[in-house]
Amino acid sequence: KRMISWLDVYHVFSATVPLYVAMILGYLSAKHLNIFSLEQCAGINKFVAKFSIPLLSFQVISQNNPFKMSPKLILSDILQKILAFVVLAVVLRFWHPTGGRGDKLGWIITGLSVSVLPNTLILGIPILSAIDGDAAVNILVQIVVLQSLIWYNILLFLFEINAARKITSSGASIEHRGNGNEEADIEQEPKEEVAIVRTRSPGTGKILLKAWQKLIINPNTYATLFGLVWATLHFRLGWKLPEMIGKSVHMISDGGLGMAMFSLGLFMASQSSIIACGTKMAIITMVLKFVLGPALMVASAFSIRLRSTLFRVTILQAALPQGIVPFVFAKEYNVNPEIASTGVIFGMLISLPITLAYYFVLDL
Amino acid sequence: KRMISWLDVYHVFSATVPLYVAMILGYLSAKHLNIFSLEQCAGINKFVAKFSIPLLSFQVISQNNPFKMSPKLILSDILQKILAFVVLAVVLRFWHPTGGRGDKLGWIITGLSVSVLPNTLILGIPILSAIDGDAAVNILVQIVVLQSLIWYNILLFLFEINAARKITSSGASIEHRGNGNEEADIEQEPKEEVAIVRTRSPGTGKILLKAWQKLIINPNTYATLFGLVWATLHFRLGWKLPEMIGKSVHMISDGGLGMAMFSLGLFMASQSSIIACGTKMAIITMVLKFVLGPALMVASAFSIRLRSTLFRVTILQAALPQGIVPFVFAKEYNVNPEIASTGVIFGMLISLPITLAYYFVLDL
Repeated sequence: KRMISWLDVYHVFSATVPLYVAMILGYLSAKHLNIFSLEQCAGINKFVAKFSIPLLSFQVISQNNPFKMSPKLILSDILQKILAFVVLAVVLRFWHPTGGRGDKLGWIITGLSVSVLPNTLILGIPILSAIDGDAAVNILVQIVVLQSLIWYNILLFLFEINAARKITSSGASIEHRGNGNEEADIEQEPKEEVAIVRTRSPGTGKILLKAWQKLIINPNTYATLFGLVWATLHFRLGWKLPEMIGKSVHMISDGGLGMAMFSLGLFMASQSSIIACGTKMAIITMVLKFVLGPALMVASAFSIRLRSTLFRVTILQAALPQGIVPFVFAKEYNVNPEIASTGVIFGMLISLPITLAYYFVLDL
Repeated sequence: KRMISWLDVYHVFSATVPLYVAMILGYLSAKHLNIFSLEQCAGINKFVAKFSIPLLSFQVISQNNPFKMSPKLILSDILQKILAFVVLAVVLRFWHPTGGRGDKLGWIITGLSVSVLPNTLILGIPILSAIDGDAAVNILVQIVVLQSLIWYNILLFLFEINAARKITSSGASIEHRGNGNEEADIEQEPKEEVAIVRTRSPGTGKILLKAWQKLIINPNTYATLFGLVWATLHFRLGWKLPEMIGKSVHMISDGGLGMAMFSLGLFMASQSSIIACGTKMAIITMVLKFVLGPALMVASAFSIRLRSTLFRVTILQAALPQGIVPFVFAKEYNVNPEIASTGVIFGMLISLPITLAYYFVLDL
């Protein structure tokens, strides 16, 4: 543990500014230069969601030694997410963000994305390695692996359940899926619709089955599973990834981050205001991110009895700004993307001061 | 100069296979998985053409020392391109690929793309460094710089002239531009159209002016100029590129190559056959690439009196398969993209044996 120098601050800036540059390029090219149509923007976002992110996940998971992960860290990470789910579900029982009644699952998904899925890979590693050095990097890599392997897949599963519920409950409102897999939906629709002519409230089992069928054809599911299998073969049996496969993965995943930010900029341009979700919702988003998320992590870390560096880094990472991947998914499934985008943009603007504030508090 | 080992062959394979993987992913996702619509495919190609390639060009140009380039190499490269232009223009005077009469400029553009713009960066460097080591890399980097700085800009200028001619001669057939800058065109159209109401054959000056106006708003023009300016500042005055700018450029350019191949795969899927241009045209394409291009380079290298390694590497690089960038531009401007795509695909399949054949001939 050491003091943060100006050089460290500069490194964090160097990690953040390029993300903004990519975003601003996207924003300008859609807003003022009229280079991309809405449908073309959707194509770019889809490429990131279906190819770049899964292959980036494969890379992260396959390079991490699954036999050297900290069980306490895993437990406290899982506990934090469960607590967040419970808190969000309880709050939504008494208060609804838009005053309406429906789409609670959508709001839970958005709440989870904003509060407990921070940007550990891009911002976390430079910021926290400046504070705690290699020990922090080791812990963060494990958290990144848990995100990709467990949480993104669960998030996608929730997105699919939400989509399946909307389709089955409203009969044929395929449009709700936004720019999602329209073609695939249309194929499956006829059978489904006949079933709804009979009954208006389809069984939970059916919805889960449908969501499951979607999940197992999602590239992210395969990429993360293959990543884990490969990590096992590599770290247990010493197998090496052939150069060709490694390069193939990099070829698609390398541009993912820049394109995700570019896509965020494109999305911003399509909204009437930069704070797309309105000021009130933006404030709620920031509270969820910088108060609820870290607070739940503190509760979780205390229960699991994390100590010293592990304790500090686990809580600091929970206070990092929201990740970019949840925005890409929110846009792809069209579930409150305006909130996820505000979370990313504002989160990144105020990330450094907030993280430093948490650091000084934990130092006392 | 040394014998090529099996390890070298393996390295070349490792450089080629990932390109094919990206292409096949694109092909499958559009053809069988129905993930992308045509308009979404156009969005991905446009991102590569307008952002990834310009920034990749900036990177290459800004890292090359302009004061250490070989004047003989530059001259022979220029001479080869002039010869190719003359040969193509003469051939098109007596024989037209489709039997028609129009669009000769379009066919010259395609001919140049196929015959004299090889894939020096991705395939050239691993293949030729295996044969001639660092001396080859040094020569190839200079050729890559000439490609980005001179030839891609001239190619874009020709594309714009072609587009401006089509618009002005056919009145309002904006659709000819394919998925190009429709919005920008529409803005400029009214004034333009009034002028055509008066006369049906607009002056060359007007067309050149219009093409020039397009060229100076093309990101590639700026990126290459800035690259050259920066290289001058860096290698003369010792200025260093700030970490942030370097990272920003990488953020967008890193994925360009994979996406260009992915876009090629998407395009293939939209065609009725994998040899999109038909067998006859595919054979002509291969002759232009592997016979005309290198032959003109031999003529040019003899005239400029290149010697030893410089002579050999210059001719070997001319026999490399067609580059990917010309395909991306051909698709963007919708000028015979089916030929450029066949050139890339088949060129890459037979690149290694052809290059080796040239190597052995030059070795005699």
